[in-house]
Order: sequence, then structure tokens, then C-alpha cells
Amino acid sequence: MTYCVAIKVNDGLVFAGDTRTAAGVDDVRTYNKLHVLEVPGERVFVILSAGNLATTQYVLAHARREMNDPNVAVSLRTVRHMFDAADYLGQLSVRAQKQATESNMNVNVETTLILGGQITGEDPAIYMIYPLGNCISASPETPFLQIGEIKYGKPILDRFVRSQVKLEDAARCALVSLDSTMRSNISVGPPVDVAILPRDALAISHSLRLDFDTPYYASLKDAWGRQLENAVRNLPKFDWEVQQSLPLSAQPVPVSTMGQQQRQQDGSSQQQGWQGDSWSPDSDPDNGFR
Amino acid sequence: MTYCVAIKVNDGLVFAGDTRTAAGVDDVRTYNKLHVLEVPGERVFVILSAGNLATTQYVLAHARREMNDPNVAVSLRTVRHMFDAADYLGQLSVRAQKQATESNMNVNVETTLILGGQITGEDPAIYMIYPLGNCISASPETPFLQIGEIKYGKPILDRFVRSQVKLEDAARCALVSLDSTMRSNISVGPPVDVAILPRDALAISHSLRLDFDTPYYASLKDAWGRQLENAVRNLPKFDWEVQQSLPLSAQPVPVSTMGQQQRQQDGSSQQQGWQGDSWSPDSDPDNGFR
Repeated sequence: MTYCVAIKVNDGLVFAGDTRTAAGVDDVRTYNKLHVLEVPGERVFVILSAGNLATTQYVLAHARREMNDPNVAVSLRTVRHMFDAADYLGQLSVRAQKQATESNMNVNVETTLILGGQITGEDPAIYMIYPLGNCISASPETPFLQIGEIKYGKPILDRFVRSQVKLEDAARCALVSLDSTMRSNISVGPPVDVAILPRDALAISHSLRLDFDTPYYASLKDAWGRQLENAVRNLPKFDWEVQQSLPLSAQPVPVSTMGQQQRQQDGSSQQQGWQGDSWSPDSDPDNGFR
Repeated sequence: MTYCVAIKVNDGLVFAGDTRTAAGVDDVRTYNKLHVLEVPGERVFVILSAGNLATTQYVLAHARREMNDPNVAVSLRTVRHMFDAADYLGQLSVRAQKQATESNMNVNVETTLILGGQITGEDPAIYMIYPLGNCISASPETPFLQIGEIKYGKPILDRFVRSQVKLEDAARCALVSLDSTMRSNISVGPPVDVAILPRDALAISHSLRLDFDTPYYASLKDAWGRQLENAVRNLPKFDWEVQQSLPLSAQPVPVSTMGQQQRQQDGSSQQQGWQGDSWSPDSDPDNGFR
């Protein structure tokens, strides 16, 4: 498995990915999944990959080779638009998959890519390239794209990432998102790579490789854990807690905060809300409902 | 889909679940997934359900009916141990599935249950009951169980829930976990139900049904969003940010925090870390790696 994320904010792009590559739990290796291809000062591309490693390596090898070959008409050096770059990589991916499955159609050699970067004269952009070769870009409402094991790390991105967020804050948010994922899925693992591409810089300004024992990563993990714990502890108290902490004479007149349920101030059972359960032995079972 | 969670801490148990029930996106209903069955002062059971609604309703209908029938030898009224209660519900679930698939084995009528509660003389316990009828309990290292769409809401539970956490803090953490899930998966939806069962109370002390516009839930959501945003903004700065904010004369002697990568203080490209990419056109493709 893999987890990679790309974020597009007003100030530029952030890329992050893990490095764990596995063919089963008994065959685990470390591979870079964040690749930079560039024509300095003119165009920069960052490719993140999730899926079959052979397909990914085919795409990268051909993209790099053709970029350096002046006789190739269409390459990452010649495309005019980011969309065309995504389309080009998509076609390479389709070709790699087709070639690999010629003798056996039942092997899954799919790969999903994220392409991000900037070509002079265009805005920075990020695209997700599907195994079919087609692609989608991020949008102002959805300023990030994820590939691989995306669920564990999505809530913090959903809550924090907006177009106006600072590049470095977006990078820290990506690191937290990766950290949450590594904690829950061991097929996503360290070290993690981060790259920052500021708008119009046409060069990666900062790239980091962070392991659990890298001092910055360790301090980030530690700070995040402490702050999250404090955040839960500082959430609004339930009203029975507020009342318990006041002297009897100071207890406020009850205000309903409990929705449809009745409030009880003495802490005793109030499960009557469930007596009217929606199930009943006589009701018609709805087989499809889950 | 569904998302339910049960948490076991030293002080007792917390249960929470959503209420959205769907057979496709065009047929959405609201069903209670948190059910309380009790013999007041002697034993309390809470059942959370995820999966086929007909199977769930079969289990609940039979469990309730047999609990109230003095002629039934084995029921939630008669079992001596929480494990036996879980085993009993597991057998009901298996029977329901068998009956439903007699004429058509290809329909999936599986359901996964969480059973929590306490029987006088025993510790409180929570069990996950699989569609096969077998079960596992929570442990001190893993003090919570989840069913349904579990990934989005897991990181906050992983980071916060420990046995020594206060019951109310655990309940707030469950609410945040549910909120993150509802944000990312529309098949998990409000209102949400929460029930708190303090150790040795042998009765639910508080039960809440909270919708997005319930004042407590609205304030919790709002507080969580703000605190999480602050938490990201307060994470340790990258060293180039620290240096930028100091006058030149006060800049510290660099300390390596960047792991294997070289640090650069001028903000210029440092992507040489990726020049030694692990891919190469000549390398042997490892088909199985992803």
C-alpha cells in the first residue's frame, strides 16, 4: 500500500508521500514515491505514485528518457499545458499496463499517479491520473488529491486545507495526515518525503525526508499528540458536568441541549428515548438496508 | 453504511452510532442502531449494529422476546457471562442469515454487532460479534471497537482513548470520531446516538440523540474545528521559517533536522536528495510490488 497527498494552495503546491512498498507482509521494501522532473527555470513536475511498482517505474523511466531526447515530439519537455502532461503520463501508464498483461490479463498492474507542477505562463496545477489514463484536477472546493490508503488521513485535510492556507502550514498538515495513516495501516510506512513548490518559483524550494527519529518529525508528532489530546479535553462539557461543578444555588435554569431526548439532571437512566425503537418483530424486513 | 463505536475505560463504557440506513443513495432512511436491553439493577446490554437491517432486526426481536419469556433457557436474562451473551447473539445472527439465504445464497445478509454491557458480579465488557457468530473483546491495549465505516474516525480514537480517560471525555472523542466520518462518507449520517454506562451503575446514566442543529453538537463541532485548526498552526516551524523570522545576526548555528537530506538555508532548490532515485530504466521490474 501507499499513501500520497498533493495540496494546491494560493501560494503553490505541497507534495508528500510514504516510502513503504510491499508484496505481502513478508516482503517489504523502501521506495521513493515522490519524483521530481524539471527543466530548471521553465517547468517543474512532481509525480506521486500508488499501485504497481513496475508500471510506475515504466512510466517514470520513459518520461525521463523522452524528456531528455530532443527527437521526441511529445514529452514533459514539450507539452504546453499541465493537462497535456497528465494526459501524456496517462498514456504511458496505459501502455505499460497493456504490455505487462499481454500474456496474462488476470494480473493487476494498475497504478494511480498524482502529477503536480507548473509550466511557465500557467498556474500551478495538480492532477490525479487514473489507471485508465484519464485524469481529474483539484478544484478550489477540493484543494487536495490523495492516492492509496486515503481514509485515515482525510479528516484533518478536510478540516484544515483551504486555498488561503500558508504553504508551510499545508506541509505540516500533510505530515500529520501521513502520520495518522502510518499509525493505522502498517503497509504505509516511514520515511516520508515532502516537497514544496512555491507558485512561480519553477523550482522545488524545500524537500525533506523525515524518519520517525528525525528530530523535526519527532517534535511534530509529539506536539500533535499533545495538542490533539488538549483539544478533546477542551471540548464543551455536557450540561450535567457543568451543573455538577456548580454549587446547588448557582445551577442555571435548564436549557434544552439534548435534541429529542429528555434531559436529566440527576444522572439517572434516561433511556426512555429508545423505548420507541424503530425495529419491531412485526415490521417488514427490508433486505437491502444496511 | 454505518459507523458505530464502543469504548471501554476504567470508569465504564461509552457507545455511539449514526442513524443513516441506505439501500443505495436513492433510498435513505433513519434507523436507530443503538439498542438498550436491560434487567434493571441486574444487567444492562447495549447492542450496536452494522450490516443487513433485516438480520439485525431478527437478532434484536428474538433477543428481546426470549429475554421476556421465562420458559426460554438461554437468553440475555439468563446468561452468566458477557461472553455468553455475545455468543448467544452470534448464534441468533447466524440463524437469521441462514434462514434468509435458504432460497438464494448469493445475497449478502451479513451483520456485524457490538455488544457491550455489564452483568452483576462481572466487569463491564465490549465484544465485536462477526457475521460468523464468533466474537472478540476489547483489550487494555485496544480499548475501543468499531463497526461499519471505521477508517475516517479511527485516528482520533487511536490518539486519545486510553483506559484512564474520563467517561465524558471518551464520549466527546466518540462524537468527534463520528463527526469526522459523517463529513467524509455521506452514507454515515445524523442524528447520532450516544449512551454512557458507568461501571457498576447497571443502568445507562446518560443517553443523547444529537443532530447537527442540536446546540450541544453544534458547539462541539465548532469548538473542534477551531481547536484542530489552531493545533495545525501551532505545530513546530520548519527551520527555514525560524531562521527567516530572526535578524541575520541572531540566526543560530544550523542543527541538522532534515534526516538524510541536506539542509539549505537560502530557500533554493535542494532536490538533489532525489537524484539518486531508486528507479532506473535498467532495473528489474518487481511486478508484485505496490
